[in-house]
Amino acid sequence: MPERLQIAVVGAAECDDRLRQAACAVGEGLARAGAHLICGGRGGVMAAASRGARAAGGLVTGILPGADAGESTPNDDLSLALFTGMGQARNLSVVLSGAAVIAVGGGWGTLSEIALALKHGIPVVTLESWSLSRPDGRNESLLRPADSPRRAVKLALELAIPERLG
Amino acid sequence: MPERLQIAVVGAAECDDRLRQAACAVGEGLARAGAHLICGGRGGVMAAASRGARAAGGLVTGILPGADAGESTPNDDLSLALFTGMGQARNLSVVLSGAAVIAVGGGWGTLSEIALALKHGIPVVTLESWSLSRPDGRNESLLRPADSPRRAVKLALELAIPERLG
Amino acid sequence: MPERLQIAVVGAAECDDRLRQAACAVGEGLARAGAHLICGGRGGVMAAASRGARAAGGLVTGILPGADAGESTPNDDLSLALFTGMGQARNLSVVLSGAAVIAVGGGWGTLSEIALALKHGIPVVTLESWSLSRPDGRNESLLRPADSPRRAVKLALELAIPERLG
Amino acid sequence: MPERLQIAVVGAAECDDRLRQAACAVGEGLARAGAHLICGGRGGVMAAASRGARAAGGLVTGILPGADAGESTPNDDLSLALFTGMGQARNLSVVLSGAAVIAVGGGWGTLSEIALALKHGIPVVTLESWSLSRPDGRNESLLRPADSPRRAVKLALELAIPERLG
Repeated sequence: MPERLQIAVVGAAECDDRLRQAACAVGEGLARAGAHLICGGRGGVMAAASRGARAAGGLVTGILPGADAGESTPNDDLSLALFTGMGQARNLSVVLSGAAVIAVGGGWGTLSEIALALKHGIPVVTLESWSLSRPDGRNESLLRPADSPRRAVKLALELAIPERLG
Repeated sequence: MPERLQIAVVGAAECDDRLRQAACAVGEGLARAGAHLICGGRGGVMAAASRGARAAGGLVTGILPGADAGESTPNDDLSLALFTGMGQARNLSVVLSGAAVIAVGGGWGTLSEIALALKHGIPVVTLESWSLSRPDGRNESLLRPADSPRRAVKLALELAIPERLG
Repeated sequence: MPERLQIAVVGAAECDDRLRQAACAVGEGLARAGAHLICGGRGGVMAAASRGARAAGGLVTGILPGADAGESTPNDDLSLALFTGMGQARNLSVVLSGAAVIAVGGGWGTLSEIALALKHGIPVVTLESWSLSRPDGRNESLLRPADSPRRAVKLALELAIPERLG
Repeated sequence: MPERLQIAVVGAAECDDRLRQAACAVGEGLARAGAHLICGGRGGVMAAASRGARAAGGLVTGILPGADAGESTPNDDLSLALFTGMGQARNLSVVLSGAAVIAVGGGWGTLSEIALALKHGIPVVTLESWSLSRPDGRNESLLRPADSPRRAVKLALELAIPERLG
């Protein structure tokens, strides 16, 4: 089993200050809980969560879409920068590498990550994100909205399935 | 440029009769319009759309998740069966190979395909599928609900961007 | 089972006239045998094989690395152009979609395709390509050099495992 | 830029004692040099390199083919276990995440990783691995055999291109 609980944080590469603060608080909360934050490694929500985690002494891994830093600039707060060269197909790797997922904000890429996580039975906590009105029912109980970063972290830690990862 | 207009049809590997009939009618309508149907190659919505298209003399390509037919059984109505060995990461290939996407029904995998298509600016027509209440606005105009298979095919043909593919 | 025997042809996006002629003859031979040619959809060896196949009335599918024609220009002789957005990760899809693989010439991408095919137990016929001096032994018998395009096609048809694909 | 120099170690999931010892020594050498070892996360060469690195206090990340630990058992010495659900398509992510690659032993998967690395201009040091007799010339100077684990580590550190990763 990996050394730390791994939690994925997903969100758009561009975001406003409000979401940035929320993502930063999520990253900080995860780091304080001893979790290793997994994200897409880029800007916006990903960069804010990374910064929050690193400021609190946490570990952050970015799984980037490009083949190298020239194609995808990693944000400044990654402990580890992994490159896939697979574009948005890397979204699947991000969510599969978490014992739970926290989705902050509501881009299309984020929605794909929420959907792929639930498809694989991975719990998803949403914050200022999509509310989904026509699920097929399966795994719906794994999708939980949170009304604050603190609550999102708490829920993710409660729902997390560490056995997924070893 | 490829020989025919390529339209992707996405939907769950299991479905009820109502969706099956809708998917079959979509496949038939696309074939009658001369389009080449691209799908995930498996059962449920995918099989029904394939059957409808083939019965109308159309071409159908399945892009399957497994590495071979032992891992992913292709449905019985594929002109061409492609294997990826990439699991749900193949969802991206399915939508990127369409000039437009028709989503039938509402599974999580289908939602990931709707989201990935819109992320890449590919028009999506939905039929008995998700209604999405908190998009980020970008590319939202590319998402169009249809109230019948006939209307879904018509809309997809109107919105299609064949230049995407050559 | 798909309508036609599917054979993958792999080779570099740039090549000299000698390889171009060999690849064209391979494509023509496959088309005359009624096979559906699967390739990476780009230039060089891929374009030459596609041209040979189409000139002989065959079907050709290209599985391209980019997300659309703007990122990866399809060659002029594809019946079907599929986009993956996964860069060189698409090499796996190309070989997995063949009942056998013919490798023409010797680039690094081509070598990765030969290796991925043999890893999955798919027969590989080489023409003016790599001779591999330190295999681990497993599946080595599936790797067969040919001394002419005609012989390469013949060997590929003999070794092909159509059951892989349905 | 990531915190540590990242070096990928590739090799088969099964191996004999001789290769196991070599891989273990490579892992140990990389850890002593302060590098973060990236590998495929499974057994054989991967497990031996991971064990050597961890025993020397190093960090080890495994990028696994399966969607979770049930599909791909991570070896016992990973600091971080990432899941891709993409099978052998994950080989590309492993090599793209290194500033250099060390290949130990000679399986087909390993050969695909050597080829994919060189295709992307990433230096590869080989140890008891393939000798390639018909490259196309491009990037050939990036492929360097080593005659001992110590020499392999030294060469990889010299050839490494840390700018690739940020």
